Amino acid sequence: MKTDRLEMFSDGVFAIAITLLILEVKIPKHEDLIASGGLYNYLLHLWPSYLSYVVSFFVLGIYWSNHHHLFTFVIKKTDHVFNMMNILFLMTIAFMPFTTAVMGDFILDGEYRNAAVTTYCIGICLPPPTILVIILYATYKKRLVDPKLSKRFINKQIIKLIFALVGQGTALAFSFNYPIVSIWIIVVCLFIYFLPPDQPEYDEV
Amino acid sequence: MKTDRLEMFSDGVFAIAITLLILEVKIPKHEDLIASGGLYNYLLHLWPSYLSYVVSFFVLGIYWSNHHHLFTFVIKKTDHVFNMMNILFLMTIAFMPFTTAVMGDFILDGEYRNAAVTTYCIGICLPPPTILVIILYATYKKRLVDPKLSKRFINKQIIKLIFALVGQGTALAFSFNYPIVSIWIIVVCLFIYFLPPDQPEYDEV
Amino acid sequence: MKTDRLEMFSDGVFAIAITLLILEVKIPKHEDLIASGGLYNYLLHLWPSYLSYVVSFFVLGIYWSNHHHLFTFVIKKTDHVFNMMNILFLMTIAFMPFTTAVMGDFILDGEYRNAAVTTYCIGICLPPPTILVIILYATYKKRLVDPKLSKRFINKQIIKLIFALVGQGTALAFSFNYPIVSIWIIVVCLFIYFLPPDQPEYDEV
Amino acid sequence: MKTDRLEMFSDGVFAIAITLLILEVKIPKHEDLIASGGLYNYLLHLWPSYLSYVVSFFVLGIYWSNHHHLFTFVIKKTDHVFNMMNILFLMTIAFMPFTTAVMGDFILDGEYRNAAVTTYCIGICLPPPTILVIILYATYKKRLVDPKLSKRFINKQIIKLIFALVGQGTALAFSFNYPIVSIWIIVVCLFIYFLPPDQPEYDEV
Repeated sequence: MKTDRLEMFSDGVFAIAITLLILEVKIPKHEDLIASGGLYNYLLHLWPSYLSYVVSFFVLGIYWSNHHHLFTFVIKKTDHVFNMMNILFLMTIAFMPFTTAVMGDFILDGEYRNAAVTTYCIGICLPPPTILVIILYATYKKRLVDPKLSKRFINKQIIKLIFALVGQGTALAFSFNYPIVSIWIIVVCLFIYFLPPDQPEYDEV
Repeated sequence: MKTDRLEMFSDGVFAIAITLLILEVKIPKHEDLIASGGLYNYLLHLWPSYLSYVVSFFVLGIYWSNHHHLFTFVIKKTDHVFNMMNILFLMTIAFMPFTTAVMGDFILDGEYRNAAVTTYCIGICLPPPTILVIILYATYKKRLVDPKLSKRFINKQIIKLIFALVGQGTALAFSFNYPIVSIWIIVVCLFIYFLPPDQPEYDEV
Repeated sequence: MKTDRLEMFSDGVFAIAITLLILEVKIPKHEDLIASGGLYNYLLHLWPSYLSYVVSFFVLGIYWSNHHHLFTFVIKKTDHVFNMMNILFLMTIAFMPFTTAVMGDFILDGEYRNAAVTTYCIGICLPPPTILVIILYATYKKRLVDPKLSKRFINKQIIKLIFALVGQGTALAFSFNYPIVSIWIIVVCLFIYFLPPDQPEYDEV
Repeated sequence: MKTDRLEMFSDGVFAIAITLLILEVKIPKHEDLIASGGLYNYLLHLWPSYLSYVVSFFVLGIYWSNHHHLFTFVIKKTDHVFNMMNILFLMTIAFMPFTTAVMGDFILDGEYRNAAVTTYCIGICLPPPTILVIILYATYKKRLVDPKLSKRFINKQIIKLIFALVGQGTALAFSFNYPIVSIWIIVVCLFIYFLPPDQPEYDEV
């Protein structure tokens, strides 16, 4: 089976999840404006929601770009099991608008800050294990990949994913007591991910 | 008429319906947090919503995968009547975020549990009859299918659909009094559906 | 300019508008269930919302199918003005979830029934004039259509659209005092539209 | 890397953002109808929401059309940095349903009118700088564009963007004290943008 409809379906889910992020930035009601002392004040105090929006938009954008890269250079065909694994991956992607909203709404609230950041970190930690499963399944005996792709390139991708997982797990661990540290880890990870992905390497024959 | 725009439109509806599922997981308000004793507690008590999200995501993902399979291997062209039947099918798919939300919100509430599971089971029972109509219409005198497709393969698909309908109808019947039994039936059906679909068979000439 | 990206963008808007219809079917809160005497009762009393959902899903599905047909058989290229006209058409399509929700919510309420049906009829009346403008612009001096397309075929399409407009205008006129008549007119129009669109005719040379 | 998946993903985000605009037109509750004296009255008083919907639909439609034009005639390939810049651009596009809703809800309210129009103007001012960055990056040493594209054509595009920015910045500046002037500037800009984009010019060899 070819991967084109799988890619288009995934692109659709990415495009929707990334655009739904805006629905989580709350449009004020009249009562809210009175409580916060006017519309300017209300909108200024929404800054954690804007920030969550920007961070999550980039996180999802980077995942989209990497998914795109994976299907252009690594994955060459698909089967039913692989389709189901990709559904699992998309499930973790579509979950992000929820954790983003929770963080945006409660990060300024001292009482709930830790739980809000923990929630966001869990959301961030969900996709990488599913990508790991996808890559392990596809590259096992070069099942769904270009047979000429070098073992070294594949291993490099797996190591990078494990590093990402360790970084995000660290952010999650800190979030219970030091949420600010978690956010800095996430932002640093984001900047590392802005680097371009690896070019594929092939075995010489 | 070729099926490519029909497939793309259907993929769009699937991608949106599956991503809208997350909108039904409710983002807490301040009052909710006070009522449930903190954000951690609130989020832990949302587990029926997460579970409904996961089950419905897989249900819609499997329907997408099977629809994809049907249009790759069985349906070769389309006409206006077939387009309208596909719209009817998509109508049952787009309805699922509603029944998923009702189940997630009320399954923990003893008073409304049966009705919540009944609602979800009705949602689950709606698509198969429309697929049956689609297959019967398309295969009648091999109207819209590959003329070499074997009668045996077509009949196998119809029998499988009827089995699915019986399973889901049983889940619905139990939901009025034994909702837990219904949920187990749905989960078992889900695992059966994780099996890959049949490869097409052709008449020898 | 070719029409493929225009078609894909339009398909996207159609797919989203049709799937957003479900967001307008309201998920109950605890208070609603107490007020309406249980979840079964609540869900049964939602029937006008289900009905509006079904009618609007078919209306949008038929518009999608006709748009598809128009771009397969009639429109062959596009320009900037035509793109803007298509945006105007899509604006009337994306408006339908709003009018559908208003009808579903208030048609059972004697006091607001007429206004609710009027709202829905206005929503139904918006797309045809924009399609008329699209067809007149595209066929004027056969600007954007196949030059061999017969004048007779083009005129038939315009006459059909004017009939649709008259039917929907009549539904709108009745809605102020006899909303039930309006709904019957809409349903009858729907059945007429289930008929397949015309096959294109070409000038003999 | 080719631009086709980038274009499809962008089309998806555009289609969703433009269709989500309708979710910001508020469906009334019973209390709202009593407060505003009936459904007709309520719907008539929603006119600022309809107007915001129409203006933003055209704004997003024009951005889509220009993005389309840019990728058909100017941008010929993409790289990772360019993908990330396009994500930044899409982030400003997906933000528009929020600013549209704020304007629609509060423009009639004397106390909050200025802030509402300021919000909308900020939303309008966000995309052009990101497009400027995109064009500067792509055309620097003709990195991602057709090498035969004339310098004069590229400069014309940049000058036009700077003009747009000045116009929108003026609208923003007026919004703090004279919101009505801002709205007129936006509407005039909209009409200018209805003009077709420039045809590309190539260097003679």
